[in-house]
Amino acid sequence: MSKTELKGHTKAMTTTPWLAFSIDRASKKPVFEQICEALRQSIIGGSLAEGAKLPPTRVLATELGVSRSTTVTAYEQLVAEGYLHSQRGSGFTVCAVGEADLAAKPGHRPQTEDEAQVKLPLPFEAGQPDMRLFPHRQWAKAVARVCRTTPQLMLMGGTAAGNFELRKAIAAHVAEWRGIEASPHQILITAGSTDALDLCLRVLSSRGEVIGLEDPGYAPLRHIAQFHGLQPAYLEIDEQGAKLPEAEYSPRLVILTPSHQFPLGGAMSPNRRQKFISWAQATGGWVIEDDYDSEFRYAGRPIPAMAGFDRLRRVIYVGSFSKIFSNSLRLGYVVVPEDLLEQFRPAIGRSGLRASYMPQQALAEFMHSGEFYRHLRRVRRTYGERRKFLLDRLVQDFGGLGWFRDHQAGMQTVLHLPGSVHDKDVARRAADQGVTVQPLSRFSASGAGPNGLLLGFCGFSEAEMSPALDVLKLCLEVGTSAAGG
Amino acid sequence: MSKTELKGHTKAMTTTPWLAFSIDRASKKPVFEQICEALRQSIIGGSLAEGAKLPPTRVLATELGVSRSTTVTAYEQLVAEGYLHSQRGSGFTVCAVGEADLAAKPGHRPQTEDEAQVKLPLPFEAGQPDMRLFPHRQWAKAVARVCRTTPQLMLMGGTAAGNFELRKAIAAHVAEWRGIEASPHQILITAGSTDALDLCLRVLSSRGEVIGLEDPGYAPLRHIAQFHGLQPAYLEIDEQGAKLPEAEYSPRLVILTPSHQFPLGGAMSPNRRQKFISWAQATGGWVIEDDYDSEFRYAGRPIPAMAGFDRLRRVIYVGSFSKIFSNSLRLGYVVVPEDLLEQFRPAIGRSGLRASYMPQQALAEFMHSGEFYRHLRRVRRTYGERRKFLLDRLVQDFGGLGWFRDHQAGMQTVLHLPGSVHDKDVARRAADQGVTVQPLSRFSASGAGPNGLLLGFCGFSEAEMSPALDVLKLCLEVGTSAAGG
Repeated sequence: MSKTELKGHTKAMTTTPWLAFSIDRASKKPVFEQICEALRQSIIGGSLAEGAKLPPTRVLATELGVSRSTTVTAYEQLVAEGYLHSQRGSGFTVCAVGEADLAAKPGHRPQTEDEAQVKLPLPFEAGQPDMRLFPHRQWAKAVARVCRTTPQLMLMGGTAAGNFELRKAIAAHVAEWRGIEASPHQILITAGSTDALDLCLRVLSSRGEVIGLEDPGYAPLRHIAQFHGLQPAYLEIDEQGAKLPEAEYSPRLVILTPSHQFPLGGAMSPNRRQKFISWAQATGGWVIEDDYDSEFRYAGRPIPAMAGFDRLRRVIYVGSFSKIFSNSLRLGYVVVPEDLLEQFRPAIGRSGLRASYMPQQALAEFMHSGEFYRHLRRVRRTYGERRKFLLDRLVQDFGGLGWFRDHQAGMQTVLHLPGSVHDKDVARRAADQGVTVQPLSRFSASGAGPNGLLLGFCGFSEAEMSPALDVLKLCLEVGTSAAGG
Repeated sequence: MSKTELKGHTKAMTTTPWLAFSIDRASKKPVFEQICEALRQSIIGGSLAEGAKLPPTRVLATELGVSRSTTVTAYEQLVAEGYLHSQRGSGFTVCAVGEADLAAKPGHRPQTEDEAQVKLPLPFEAGQPDMRLFPHRQWAKAVARVCRTTPQLMLMGGTAAGNFELRKAIAAHVAEWRGIEASPHQILITAGSTDALDLCLRVLSSRGEVIGLEDPGYAPLRHIAQFHGLQPAYLEIDEQGAKLPEAEYSPRLVILTPSHQFPLGGAMSPNRRQKFISWAQATGGWVIEDDYDSEFRYAGRPIPAMAGFDRLRRVIYVGSFSKIFSNSLRLGYVVVPEDLLEQFRPAIGRSGLRASYMPQQALAEFMHSGEFYRHLRRVRRTYGERRKFLLDRLVQDFGGLGWFRDHQAGMQTVLHLPGSVHDKDVARRAADQGVTVQPLSRFSASGAGPNGLLLGFCGFSEAEMSPALDVLKLCLEVGTSAAGG
């Protein structure tokens, strides 16, 4: 029995005669995705021809009885996928869709029992870029160009340090965006930033030594440090950022997130940065700067990297592409002080090369051509809007339930909770309702650190966050009343 | 001053009026590569038009005063690059070269100071596929097809275990080629086989435990085991393959190369295999089967994998694409017994995902379409010829200098040396002359194992191996006379 025969459902459906499709509110599929699907089919099927003008988002919203943010999300999604074209002042029009696109059913994935595992991220998963906004076609064009012009450069021509064009592009990137002057020779390509951090530990530490780690901090780092046989000395976070290690622990190495502390947010003060650099100079120590999401600052001037400030003397810089490409490309890099190059280079291969060479030339061209930066600016704008939406809602609706501090940066915000509510309990309750919030206490080494929830805002549209916020509020209210009662 | 003005050099040059180019014997560039270059330029420049017939290899060889194997190598290289087309009986003709190809200067690499590091492998580097024979265009076509039809599948749609289409293709591959019946769910994609072995150790071992490793064996494995805090129990190799661990060491885990022992060559006997499986069953131990180059058997029937024989009960299978694609694609896989899946799956992400997702869909299509297997069969034939050439030369010219055993498999052969000559000395002397031979003793844990040289034969044409063999012979004769005198 097809859906249209289900008379009982008609109440829940709204039809737009113009686009001739219905919203099924009983469906698990988000409304904006239903709109996307109907529009894609009309475009692919030809009923919406190239150049056709779409109704304004307000009009379509009224017609379908949905909020305007839902229709905006749908249109933006289709712009990102290359179905629609948006022009300031003249609304949305249908793009030329070639032969090739007919096969490219977006969202097509192998229909297998394995599919159950392919989970789309749920709000508010942290650190997740929205891959629906990724310019898959432009990226595919860059890759296809390499296929056409220099196919052998997908497999040959680099060294263990990576493709030289990519290393040049990264040198230009960190110079412009992070204030780091480095030659391409100082840049080593890795299989993501975790691989980069692992490489740094292989080169700069020996079993039994002490390593300074921020607390709270990035949990996998603690595992990696343990795996390397290192004793962690945990660095508390205060208003200025991580505190210096106490003298009796004397690590040789500290790993810091100075641009935007993970997970608390907030930039390390210039004074504290200077103190870490002085410490490293005085003791022969090293600072590894994990600059995991510095691309995303929504206001004010970008904060230059500590490695730039130090002029790459005692600071090793670790960057990643996973906040732009998702972690499926799995490329990161280390910018290594000149004096350490002789130690780093041979270490890349010693535990087996891991970074795939294949995407590197295409990524270099993607960066050189400016597509990378167009996308970066575009998502930064969108993420900024989503952040504003989230923070506004927190201010409006979460009054007595918690508090947050606006660091105007990053991909997530922390909602601090009163001591009467346990973040892990709330996270568990929210998970039961299909809402992902990571408890802040899980990021501290003791497992009992500051109490709060990590709310990622980049991967989700306003239409997706809105109901999730309602759920979250209920979970917090239950927690609070339980605690109060 | 251009080369043609250097009168002093003219003696070293031979000119073919027909192709109007010269061989510069004073150049460091191999003669076959000079021929390739001239032909490429004539094709790109249009003086050799589509469909034009090339002179037979014998004729060109006579004209240029070079050996026939040199002209054969040059033509084969250009066939691999897509410039020439070879038809049985009718010689070599020029392919259609489109616009795109004009930009695709083969061998083009960034002209930078970094280039000095990009070293082509020298004979007789072991384990090196010849990437000049790789069907770069066909691979690029597979990638471009994904770009065109399902661009989002380069970055989305998989799980931590990898792209499901690729896992299906690998399941079909190991079923047909290795006799292993596994569901795609049991296949986990890794960043190469070293990453795969690392994953196995993360899951199956704990610090302080004993691990059985073949001796001699793959050196990076000893580093990885050490890194995991494992105590190696070295397994000697006899006529039947690795010997069982002595009872007092009782490892929980052994890593074996049963199809083709590395580096000695030779397959483990069925009896020994059974003994290892019985050992694992009796003690609750695990066998990791590192099947690093089993694709290359030149005679007889393929030897099924131990994991197939065991029906994936106590044997974990590790495979790799690096012998086909070079290690720049950096993809490998583990086939995991059903019972271990629950432990393996979460472990993939724990130390950071490393395998790039980007090549996976294209690789799946490359395998499904059969291109992968066409290439595999083609290089197997070529490698078989190169192997025969090498072994024939060893028999002819290296009589009193050493001995070898023909295992009719793999990518390298071992030239065993008499005790009077030290393999490391020979390797050092050969390296001074630009010939790479790895001393066998370096593969043993003590550094003083069997005395011999590892000669890789896959990466090099006969024309390249021939002078290298002359050099090697001299190095051995010097060693022998020094030892004798």
